[in-house]
Amino acid sequence: MNTLISNATVLLPDGTTKQTNIAVTGDSIVKIGAVPADWKADMIIDAHDKFAVPGFVNAHTHASMNLLRSYADDMKLMDWLQKEIWPVEAKMQDEDIYWGAMLAAVEMLRGGTTTFADMYGPNMEKVAEVVEQSGMRGVLCRGIIGVAPNGEAAFESNKKLYRDFNGAAEGRITIMFGPHAPYTCPPDFLRRVAETAREMGAEIHIHLAETKGEVEDCIKAYGKTPIALMEETGILSCGVLAAHCVHLTEDDISLMQKYHVRVAHNPGSNMKLASGIAPVPKLLAAGVCTALGTDGASSNNNLDMVEEMRLAALLHKVDTYDPLAVPAFEAVRMATEYGARAVGLQDTGKLMAGCKADITLFDMHGAAWTPRHDLVSLLVYSASANSVDTVMVNGKILMEKGELLTLDEERILYEANRCAEQLTK
Amino acid sequence: MNTLISNATVLLPDGTTKQTNIAVTGDSIVKIGAVPADWKADMIIDAHDKFAVPGFVNAHTHASMNLLRSYADDMKLMDWLQKEIWPVEAKMQDEDIYWGAMLAAVEMLRGGTTTFADMYGPNMEKVAEVVEQSGMRGVLCRGIIGVAPNGEAAFESNKKLYRDFNGAAEGRITIMFGPHAPYTCPPDFLRRVAETAREMGAEIHIHLAETKGEVEDCIKAYGKTPIALMEETGILSCGVLAAHCVHLTEDDISLMQKYHVRVAHNPGSNMKLASGIAPVPKLLAAGVCTALGTDGASSNNNLDMVEEMRLAALLHKVDTYDPLAVPAFEAVRMATEYGARAVGLQDTGKLMAGCKADITLFDMHGAAWTPRHDLVSLLVYSASANSVDTVMVNGKILMEKGELLTLDEERILYEANRCAEQLTK
Repeated sequence: MNTLISNATVLLPDGTTKQTNIAVTGDSIVKIGAVPADWKADMIIDAHDKFAVPGFVNAHTHASMNLLRSYADDMKLMDWLQKEIWPVEAKMQDEDIYWGAMLAAVEMLRGGTTTFADMYGPNMEKVAEVVEQSGMRGVLCRGIIGVAPNGEAAFESNKKLYRDFNGAAEGRITIMFGPHAPYTCPPDFLRRVAETAREMGAEIHIHLAETKGEVEDCIKAYGKTPIALMEETGILSCGVLAAHCVHLTEDDISLMQKYHVRVAHNPGSNMKLASGIAPVPKLLAAGVCTALGTDGASSNNNLDMVEEMRLAALLHKVDTYDPLAVPAFEAVRMATEYGARAVGLQDTGKLMAGCKADITLFDMHGAAWTPRHDLVSLLVYSASANSVDTVMVNGKILMEKGELLTLDEERILYEANRCAEQLTK
Repeated sequence: MNTLISNATVLLPDGTTKQTNIAVTGDSIVKIGAVPADWKADMIIDAHDKFAVPGFVNAHTHASMNLLRSYADDMKLMDWLQKEIWPVEAKMQDEDIYWGAMLAAVEMLRGGTTTFADMYGPNMEKVAEVVEQSGMRGVLCRGIIGVAPNGEAAFESNKKLYRDFNGAAEGRITIMFGPHAPYTCPPDFLRRVAETAREMGAEIHIHLAETKGEVEDCIKAYGKTPIALMEETGILSCGVLAAHCVHLTEDDISLMQKYHVRVAHNPGSNMKLASGIAPVPKLLAAGVCTALGTDGASSNNNLDMVEEMRLAALLHKVDTYDPLAVPAFEAVRMATEYGARAVGLQDTGKLMAGCKADITLFDMHGAAWTPRHDLVSLLVYSASANSVDTVMVNGKILMEKGELLTLDEERILYEANRCAEQLTK
């Protein structure tokens, strides 16, 4: 199957833009530019006045939490978790996990996100189903609370998830291990997870250094920062996608460099929960791969990667008093190229021959895209995810001119509302 | 003329919501609730599944700068102004001011903004024309750089603007005086502006305490902070809309309380230009009327009040490590009720009988509004300005189901692009 995206304005890996064609064969981009005479398109997408960018990678979320969007806000973290979120989560069944993740898939695809890294559970098979059915890419893990009564069961189910789904859905699913955090998984437990992950060839997705309190407690309990503790437990040498990383020492950053830790920065969530401001400019300067995530919809409250790019670009400027901190194109790379690297995908996140055809087309008609002095600036500082027009993943069109082709959006909205009502009544 | 907005979900002044009717007669809301038997509607808007909120008040912008959106970003403030912005602004003619402001009107109406406070020039008559033609409310002033060669001429043209346009367009236009800032208008000049404003009965719109450097320079030159200097020059006793107010002392805040200074907080601009974080929770606690503005599109880069609400709600939480800082409804009040008060409108900014009928209807269909545990939370933390469906100002419908009724959107986009190209080539 050959698809020609013709006459698009293409964001190239060096940050420049060019009006040209993108030729897709099977699941990959084969050419950016003039198409060879012997290459015949089976389908042509007219992308005049469209801005083609790599599909966004949401490097940290809890998709099924979409059912709890707007359920509880503006509360102290522990009140919020203990009084509101956890009691509802404890009631979640298969169908809640499924329809919550389906709602997330609708929202992410509509917003140009093609890959998401998800930590949740139980019943992560239902999220894997959503990945299969939606056509998106998913990097999934079972969130494991080592101290919980079901800690061992969750660990077992993460192993099963890996055996059943790693590489499934034409390679669109990757399974990682998801020990929740150092404050919910004791060192010995983490050691066992690390060992198992290494044996099975899986990587780790974990929350690290999200709040000041977490870091202080960790130092009190183990004499080490969470990052240093992760080195000791062997977690860092598995290949780690570390969410948050807000409170870091210089030594932590050195360790992260050494072990090639990849960070999922979640500016919206960190701001809303008042967790703090991650030292992103320092991480980027140190060469630490720093991607962007939305976190779950109850701490954000949406899964909008355009918004996360904007927040990343704005927040670090004001935090460092440096208007050059996290420039627009760097924010785009965090959401695309670095995102793909962070979740362990080597051949996605850029528009170039040889890369997977994960492509988002923005419709540039309208005031937010006018005038057009600089498209990357418009994307990061002015436009909104609502101007996403067409989305392709793995060479297949999942949204075309605003219509979702693989998902029954009306049914999903209906079922998500129904499940959310039932859960919270 | 009677218009019935039927079956809307209405945001009431106390932050609760209720599914009910809004009855509008002439330019005002006459009833929220069941309509009296003898009141007959000439027109009915079916607002089922629509969220009715007070139209947003953009309390500080430079509308015509929309032509410079994406022209220059990620630069040091003085490089940005001196090398990029000012040279282009110096070339602006009547038509640039007009089409730039028209583009801003399109963007603001589409985003649910019904009133804007604008400081710019020359040729502010062209912005007044945009207010007249669009049907919006405008609180306009000529930005006066006292130290510039045209300082006196700008002052004169602000007087003329007041005489020609204050109260014009069925009362939708208010004229203020616009001395740009303490660092561009010497104290004696400010004294004369204050005197004239008082004589004519006009209020003042001014930039105050935007950057650390400005405050330091002011103290060095005059031995006082910008706020204290404004007391001495008589500016504070005119009634002041003060943009930014980022760097304030406790004494400044006391003065602002005493003189009922109204603040236009511009979180997007302050973040992008790395100006700093205004002490908004302190201002609100002190009872200082604190509204929201977008600033101009070249330092934001859009005129999206939903985004400013979100930024205000998020930024002050992370800045103060308090997840209860600027709760969602407080952000909405900043963008509506406090905004109206800040720009000097006493009877707008709330949905209640007796208030002007400035009403924005959001379409709640779609993932960002699903599920609906809390509509105010959804508005501030999840939804986007793109879900604005219908906008009424002064009892007249300006946008209906996404279609602008008073503006020729396609022509405006075309002319704005043309002017922007000409200006920057």
